Amino acid sequence: MRRSVEIVEVSPRDGLQNEAVPVSTSDKLELVASLAAGGLRRVEVTSFVNPRKVPQLADAEAVCAGLPRVTGVAWSGLVLNDRGLDRALAAGLEELNVVVVCTDTFSERNQGVDTAAGVKNWRRIADRARAAGARTTLTLAAAFGCPFEGEVSAERVRQVLAACVEQAPDEVAFADTIGVGVPPQVEALTEVAAQVASGIALRWHFHNTRNTGYANAWAALQAADPELPLALDASAGGIGGCPFAPNATGNIATEDLVELLERGGVSTGVDLDALLPIGDWLGARLGAQVPGQLARAGRFPAHRE
Amino acid sequence: MRRSVEIVEVSPRDGLQNEAVPVSTSDKLELVASLAAGGLRRVEVTSFVNPRKVPQLADAEAVCAGLPRVTGVAWSGLVLNDRGLDRALAAGLEELNVVVVCTDTFSERNQGVDTAAGVKNWRRIADRARAAGARTTLTLAAAFGCPFEGEVSAERVRQVLAACVEQAPDEVAFADTIGVGVPPQVEALTEVAAQVASGIALRWHFHNTRNTGYANAWAALQAADPELPLALDASAGGIGGCPFAPNATGNIATEDLVELLERGGVSTGVDLDALLPIGDWLGARLGAQVPGQLARAGRFPAHRE
Repeated sequence: MRRSVEIVEVSPRDGLQNEAVPVSTSDKLELVASLAAGGLRRVEVTSFVNPRKVPQLADAEAVCAGLPRVTGVAWSGLVLNDRGLDRALAAGLEELNVVVVCTDTFSERNQGVDTAAGVKNWRRIADRARAAGARTTLTLAAAFGCPFEGEVSAERVRQVLAACVEQAPDEVAFADTIGVGVPPQVEALTEVAAQVASGIALRWHFHNTRNTGYANAWAALQAADPELPLALDASAGGIGGCPFAPNATGNIATEDLVELLERGGVSTGVDLDALLPIGDWLGARLGAQVPGQLARAGRFPAHRE
Repeated sequence: MRRSVEIVEVSPRDGLQNEAVPVSTSDKLELVASLAAGGLRRVEVTSFVNPRKVPQLADAEAVCAGLPRVTGVAWSGLVLNDRGLDRALAAGLEELNVVVVCTDTFSERNQGVDTAAGVKNWRRIADRARAAGARTTLTLAAAFGCPFEGEVSAERVRQVLAACVEQAPDEVAFADTIGVGVPPQVEALTEVAAQVASGIALRWHFHNTRNTGYANAWAALQAADPELPLALDASAGGIGGCPFAPNATGNIATEDLVELLERGGVSTGVDLDALLPIGDWLGARLGAQVPGQLARAGRFPAHRE
């Protein structure tokens, strides 16, 4: 099995976009600086979406303008359409995460177009991003299940991926957007990627809404081609509860994931002692205890000065 | 991979023994009846320990006296010493879970003797239990880590198991008593069991204190010999936060585990619709939201009448 993995920190984007309490631009910049100081090399800092629909991220340009330059750290942003791409490129981001939703109903609610039109958007956006010199991640959202249509088969995901792959994304991400995935789906989608997107780096986006997120992360590691880069999304404190499921937890928590990985013999490059306080810092700003559990339970064995 | 697994419901024992709020004997009997009605075939109903040390379970005899007879359901109790065995046999339990702690310090705090003396206790108790016609589980506690001594090696667990196995337990359980285990440890201990306790059914006891419990459960399934029975402990609502880690969650939640397993193609025999309300029922009695997440997030796809 592989001995290292990249973590993509998504708390500034997927975490905060799902939280009701607004967080100031300066707090977001403090957050991303802390994350980079904790050893996170990839941070998704914002999303270029309609600020009326996602007011939490309306300050995308201001966040990007304030990002520090840190050697070896890549800041990325989420893009759903051409307007978002224009904004992301103008903001100077070099890494773009472009979303295609695997079910028509969810795609229409999220992006105003069905999946087929979403695929066409991806093709145009990918060509434009490449021309501008940006790296692209193709994220296939609702790849494990849809809140409107129910089960999503690996065959459906295969068709969507096959329709997108000609644009050669730098990375393909499978997203369990609503936290319903289980390890056999991870294995099936790994196989789909090997068949349809051979040689392209894989990335996974898991929510822990029903307590399957960490099992899925481990399954992704086990199933992965050890010759290819592998990335796992996570969010400090595990913030980002899905708005479809009140009180449910959000992304898998970065600190809990790192403890699982490092104790499991997989290196992440993250400095857990530096990372651990960030969850509580976020909890204080959001006015709630974050779902990540490591900060409460403590590292094992107890790490002392 | 195997297609079915037994779940051992431990909320009445490991769940309630770790909760500060006392629960009445009649509520416990309502709980175990609900669990059996939800399809759970094995329920650990109490522990025969010093009532001054664990007042939550001081009503062990009263609980056993009130247990309903349900065809196909086995009630079991935890035993640490001869006095506990006397009480469990007098109470009429046919299945006994006997604990040997893998580290001396934890063993002394838990049972007043070191591990070597705990092994001798096990031998005597196992012989007596067999003579009385009771089934025995040998639980090796702190098999993944110790709150006092830190890391516990698979080699240490192998030595303890090897010293116990001549008494031929009906089942060997590895317990992550403080919730620090990770999947590679599950694989290593599965290998230890195959070498030292070949042919004996395996059982696992996971806590989700640091969000690794469900990943470990899935790893146990994957690693297991498909020819042998396999059992996983779980607790309705995920109650039973370890007293060493305030605010940390307890056992893996039965309903979340069942959703993971059933969606993952592994049958449990549990009726999830009947089981789901039990977590909230427990939460109401304990005055706290239980850590299990499925009841809040909802089953997927939504199950309708």
